[in-house]
Amino acid sequence: MRTRPLKVALLGCGVVGSEVARIMTTHAADLAARIGAPVELAGVAVRRPDKVREGIDPALVTTDATALVKQGDIDVVVEVIGGIEPARTLITTAFAHGASVVSANKALIAQDGAALHAAADEHGRDLYYEAAVAGAIPLIRPLRESLAGDKVNRVLGIVNGTTNFILDAMDTTGAGYQEALDEATALGYAEADPTADVEGFDAAAKAAILAGIAFHTRVRLDDVHREGMTEVTAADFASAKEMGCTIKLLAICERAADGASVTARVHPAMIPLSHPLAGVREAYNAVFVESEASGQLMFYGPGAGGSPTASAVLGDLVAVCRNRLAGATGPGESAYAALPVSPMGDVVTRYHISLDVADKPGVLAQVATVFAEHGVSIDTVRQSGKDGEASLVVVTHRASDAALGGTVEALRKLDTVRGVASIMRVEGE
Amino acid sequence: MRTRPLKVALLGCGVVGSEVARIMTTHAADLAARIGAPVELAGVAVRRPDKVREGIDPALVTTDATALVKQGDIDVVVEVIGGIEPARTLITTAFAHGASVVSANKALIAQDGAALHAAADEHGRDLYYEAAVAGAIPLIRPLRESLAGDKVNRVLGIVNGTTNFILDAMDTTGAGYQEALDEATALGYAEADPTADVEGFDAAAKAAILAGIAFHTRVRLDDVHREGMTEVTAADFASAKEMGCTIKLLAICERAADGASVTARVHPAMIPLSHPLAGVREAYNAVFVESEASGQLMFYGPGAGGSPTASAVLGDLVAVCRNRLAGATGPGESAYAALPVSPMGDVVTRYHISLDVADKPGVLAQVATVFAEHGVSIDTVRQSGKDGEASLVVVTHRASDAALGGTVEALRKLDTVRGVASIMRVEGE
Repeated sequence: MRTRPLKVALLGCGVVGSEVARIMTTHAADLAARIGAPVELAGVAVRRPDKVREGIDPALVTTDATALVKQGDIDVVVEVIGGIEPARTLITTAFAHGASVVSANKALIAQDGAALHAAADEHGRDLYYEAAVAGAIPLIRPLRESLAGDKVNRVLGIVNGTTNFILDAMDTTGAGYQEALDEATALGYAEADPTADVEGFDAAAKAAILAGIAFHTRVRLDDVHREGMTEVTAADFASAKEMGCTIKLLAICERAADGASVTARVHPAMIPLSHPLAGVREAYNAVFVESEASGQLMFYGPGAGGSPTASAVLGDLVAVCRNRLAGATGPGESAYAALPVSPMGDVVTRYHISLDVADKPGVLAQVATVFAEHGVSIDTVRQSGKDGEASLVVVTHRASDAALGGTVEALRKLDTVRGVASIMRVEGE
Repeated sequence: MRTRPLKVALLGCGVVGSEVARIMTTHAADLAARIGAPVELAGVAVRRPDKVREGIDPALVTTDATALVKQGDIDVVVEVIGGIEPARTLITTAFAHGASVVSANKALIAQDGAALHAAADEHGRDLYYEAAVAGAIPLIRPLRESLAGDKVNRVLGIVNGTTNFILDAMDTTGAGYQEALDEATALGYAEADPTADVEGFDAAAKAAILAGIAFHTRVRLDDVHREGMTEVTAADFASAKEMGCTIKLLAICERAADGASVTARVHPAMIPLSHPLAGVREAYNAVFVESEASGQLMFYGPGAGGSPTASAVLGDLVAVCRNRLAGATGPGESAYAALPVSPMGDVVTRYHISLDVADKPGVLAQVATVFAEHGVSIDTVRQSGKDGEASLVVVTHRASDAALGGTVEALRKLDTVRGVASIMRVEGE
């Protein structure tokens, strides 16, 4: 084993960073044996230098992250600050000064992954980010390496723990969205401002990263169709149950049937209770991957939290350190397929639509005619009503989002349709 | 991209090998883009050269596998023959002649993995075998690389599809073992001689491989305690249901509570229906991994079959080819921890024991005394009986296998115990 240590600079020492530092210290001998050389924490860049950090030598703490990554003798920079800046500049500076980078930063990778990979390549360094998607669950490495000889057709996943906790609570207790969100906040599963989670921004960043790797194509954050889950109601869960389904916020990356384009989207959807993703409870994450040769694979585990995320960061750290010792780099960006990313209108799936309608003869015929005129085939219809008010629940066969959109627009114009109570996609069949 | 192709020799062209060859041809452009150079099938060694093999150039087919691996210009040998010889000699010959090796051979890796890794290291070549455990499910790479910065404490898995199909059928239909085996055979899930599957030999080989990688310790096939599932009865499933459990054939690799030793075993066991492994149906495989930092992860997918196994082989092939182009090798054997492997007697778990007893006063007291004398604490007892015959079902708290063995031996000697109907471990709690 090499005795001269590899030097690691840690940017950020919050929930994840402090756990990375702790494990680097407590498991130093194991890490050294697995890497082939000891690793040494050479500096820890923080915003608040006066905060007491147990187990971290105060002499290593600095507020000058830029000076740390420019030090010149750093082998690996671990970036767990999050957000776009200063993380982006620090990472590119790190490459320019000879370091490889391990990051947990989903927002940055989703937005600027291509440019960051290019910077890494230019300097012959590694950029790894297993922790950016689904915490401790090995997902980037299996997609990029284990399935490198296969053709991935679909990635379907629960990649946000906060929203899964809320939806699971709504499903289990019959609570409404606000009540379940309050519980999640009280238990620490939701942040004070839950926007990034409940509006699907977090999941969309992960979908962009997963789609890019799965399809060997650059997928930008703007390419991902995004709908949050704040409008999911207890009534939606009741409807889902009648169909033998539950509701999950899903990230879905699909190759079109003709193989010539891909789509990526995040939205709440009904999935059958028999689907393995339906059983993913609380704040757990799980990702289903469908490939041509391997069939259906699922990866399940904790999608967030200091320790699980640190586990993913340290797995990358070991890999990147090994690569440095070998004078090699691991697999970088693979975007050779360069498939076009189609808009949401091209996505084909099934729909569950609840309509408030007038309770009089002929309404169903009118509604069915509108579906037919837009080429959307109806699977089942359920009608119920009293006192002149009625509801109509329509479940369609597979149709394009554009066709469904046109159908709904036309339905709203019918005198007999008082309102469209909800539209939800049905996935996982 | 390099234009000179990497040369691949395929040893074996059965269900897996023919699928590897097919994908290498149909997906040649994708493989080349992902590797950075084209890959060329340089030869296919088979036993029956006259068999028609669609899509394979007959000029590449040979019966002389030894000459093929000695050819000198082969970059990667893909071994999908199975069994110990001639596979072992062909692999070591391949290393000696400069090739890296991708294998799907669980029996050989479990028996001789250490020697084969040493041969690979001696010649600076790679030995990869993702396909040897759980078919297409990425498991070796996540354990070896993604969790390289973590401490794995337990691996608990369903790693044999045949036996899971049989047990699932017994659970679902109430069938007995023989009836379910006959169905599995008729449907092609069980081989004409099912011994390797139903007696747990196949799962034990996988357990040895998984334990070795998880604990950075050499675990030989002989170190794995093995019990088959041929004696599981419909009555056992009825008992399991009463406990809210089902029965699975599990491969269990555990680090002892003090961290100083490990165990590996394969046997049927009851697991709670709430455990994710309980929902693994038909011939699917799934492996639960518990680590210090990452918590509980699960990997799920098809554990066998030509296409899924070929997917795993090709993922390894891409990695090994990339390594060759980089002039590097991937992670090899990691056995630095060299923990002792404890015997089955040291394993601590819970037990479900069914006794046939005389239906008279004082029997329970006698039985309970025997448990107490051996230090095995009882969790629940259920008594039922009529006409002088009775049964007693005892579920214990955690105890060592040695203590339980002593208890059962003493129970058999009691006049009032007519027989021990079944003993089954209870796992996954």
